Amino acid sequence: MLPIDPIAELAPSPRLLLGPGPSSVHPRVLRAMSTPLLGYLDPEFLRLLDETQELLRYTFQTTNALTLPVSGTGMAGMEALLVNLLAPSERLLVCAAGFFGNRLEEVAHRHGIEVTRIDKPWGEVYAPEEVDTALRAHPAKVVALVHAETSTGALQPLEGLGEIAHRHGALLLVDAVTSLGGLPLRLDAWDIDAAYAGTQKCLGCPPGLAPVSVSPRAREAIGARTQPPSAWYFDLELLARYWGPDRAYHHTVSATLVYALREGLRLVAEEGLEALWARHAANAEYFCAGLAELDLVPFVAPAHRLPTLITVRVPHGVDEAQVRTRLRTEYGIEIGAGLGPLKGQVWRVGLMGHSSRRENVTLLLGALKEILVRRD
Amino acid sequence: MLPIDPIAELAPSPRLLLGPGPSSVHPRVLRAMSTPLLGYLDPEFLRLLDETQELLRYTFQTTNALTLPVSGTGMAGMEALLVNLLAPSERLLVCAAGFFGNRLEEVAHRHGIEVTRIDKPWGEVYAPEEVDTALRAHPAKVVALVHAETSTGALQPLEGLGEIAHRHGALLLVDAVTSLGGLPLRLDAWDIDAAYAGTQKCLGCPPGLAPVSVSPRAREAIGARTQPPSAWYFDLELLARYWGPDRAYHHTVSATLVYALREGLRLVAEEGLEALWARHAANAEYFCAGLAELDLVPFVAPAHRLPTLITVRVPHGVDEAQVRTRLRTEYGIEIGAGLGPLKGQVWRVGLMGHSSRRENVTLLLGALKEILVRRD
Repeated sequence: MLPIDPIAELAPSPRLLLGPGPSSVHPRVLRAMSTPLLGYLDPEFLRLLDETQELLRYTFQTTNALTLPVSGTGMAGMEALLVNLLAPSERLLVCAAGFFGNRLEEVAHRHGIEVTRIDKPWGEVYAPEEVDTALRAHPAKVVALVHAETSTGALQPLEGLGEIAHRHGALLLVDAVTSLGGLPLRLDAWDIDAAYAGTQKCLGCPPGLAPVSVSPRAREAIGARTQPPSAWYFDLELLARYWGPDRAYHHTVSATLVYALREGLRLVAEEGLEALWARHAANAEYFCAGLAELDLVPFVAPAHRLPTLITVRVPHGVDEAQVRTRLRTEYGIEIGAGLGPLKGQVWRVGLMGHSSRRENVTLLLGALKEILVRRD
Repeated sequence: MLPIDPIAELAPSPRLLLGPGPSSVHPRVLRAMSTPLLGYLDPEFLRLLDETQELLRYTFQTTNALTLPVSGTGMAGMEALLVNLLAPSERLLVCAAGFFGNRLEEVAHRHGIEVTRIDKPWGEVYAPEEVDTALRAHPAKVVALVHAETSTGALQPLEGLGEIAHRHGALLLVDAVTSLGGLPLRLDAWDIDAAYAGTQKCLGCPPGLAPVSVSPRAREAIGARTQPPSAWYFDLELLARYWGPDRAYHHTVSATLVYALREGLRLVAEEGLEALWARHAANAEYFCAGLAELDLVPFVAPAHRLPTLITVRVPHGVDEAQVRTRLRTEYGIEIGAGLGPLKGQVWRVGLMGHSSRRENVTLLLGALKEILVRRD
């Protein structure tokens, strides 16, 4: 027998998670996860699935029948929608301006999808007429944009883009990982055909599920395919057979993660989406006002600044990694580093879900002041 | 705004999970999941990842460096290994004798992998010389077998198969979903090149992660590929960059599920694999002895009967669904129905992980007696 040495009891240090995700999990969600499991075909569990879908539809502001959480993290949601909406050799147009726009292209390439990517400098967003022009120049079956670009902190406006896509015969695919629950997102009113999200950002849950929603128009496109999606685990119509009345076995959905998501979404519904959006906006505003007092400057212009993820320029001469280390070790606070071209240039501060609370902002601003201003 | 009606507090009925999975989660694992999260790059979390890998290596009985949990359920583990070991148009040989053997073929087809499937009646297993003959007749890059076929209750012996595969220039891929932790499995001693499992069977954890392990020989084959795996989320070398010293971001690994798996594996290590295997064997033996007293007959011959999942023939004239319903509603016990050709023919009783306890067997036998024998 190959042996093993004893491994110590789980005892992580307390952390206030104010990075790009995961954010801090709501205590009610933590408690829900210690609930003993139901089997995946137990009638009581099937009722919980239905309720979770109802709550997801409310949170996405949609009546889409095909609304369910994929059993993986947000990246699984991205890959699931790509392989369902697009067959190999079909064309995807990505309007990119950050890390996750690029990633849409990278993931699509794995499946033989033809990709046209247009780019803007990181931190900028696309105007509707730019999307219109791009679709005219690069006809595609699907056009994809990132609603809340976690790498830059920019908020891509989506109103009007669905109509533009449809005029060009394209479907509109949206990355809503860092927006779902944290800022206005209305799939039906905005004619969005497909969106994926994560649970560990604005929903107060741990990572592990990727809520997705697909419009009837997009579902028709899936139904018109001549070959099934190029990944079995992500085949949405197979998933819909389990989440729908058939209850046909596909894989063993995690009761624990469903408990968590359902509880996180119940909290969303109790607070109300509009109140939740307003809370995220108010705490972001309070944070940015505090930054100004510390002579710290957000990376993104106010007009397109996310309330859920704020990128802050690292002042000249400051060791950005040391600041993050001190926040973690002295204050128990996690914030994120810059990604890609913004590495070393910005910090990424997430104010999402249960982490978006005024007292957290006060603490972070106080800690930054102690580290940056009184650093002599 | 689209509205929503209030959804009630989570309050599932208590269930003793004695079906094909999930099995009941150990209380220590449930408690671990209510622990607040660490960020996925927190030095403390990275240490937990290392420890989880160490524990997984012990449980798989391997020194394979590439040993980690994929962020999905057991089926994600299956698809991950298929797309990493095999490029489109490469050949897989599946020695099937049940539902999950068939599924290996189905999933492989999605990726353009050429599949040869040989079949035996459900409930039977392959002798080493049969695998040898099959590989001679159908040369393949990978030969796959299901160690513990959850649909039939049959235990496929694996000793000697690695050597046979290698003699034919093939890699040996094993489905260990219902065996890992519950019965002898020794990746290194048995020359197994790749195995995937689930957490919700014999490890006492909820579903959500798929432990996989890949031998140096199989990893070399992955490294020799000219194109990357045909699914981005399942690309093991990208995952290894996060689980290894690079710590390169791929997706947001779920701290909660890692807490759960680490705790479930700590329980495995504390009890010791050999004691754990013996417990599963003893409880299965006790259950089968009790079945005999009720004139109930296991579907699989004793020589190849799994200790973790026992299929029981439904006696003539008995409404099998009603028995399951009464077990659930009157005793709070879940057992499973038959799958595929065994639908209506068998019940599937799982005695796995924390569910494999003598008192559970006593209760199930008592309940079956009350329902079946005193049913007049």
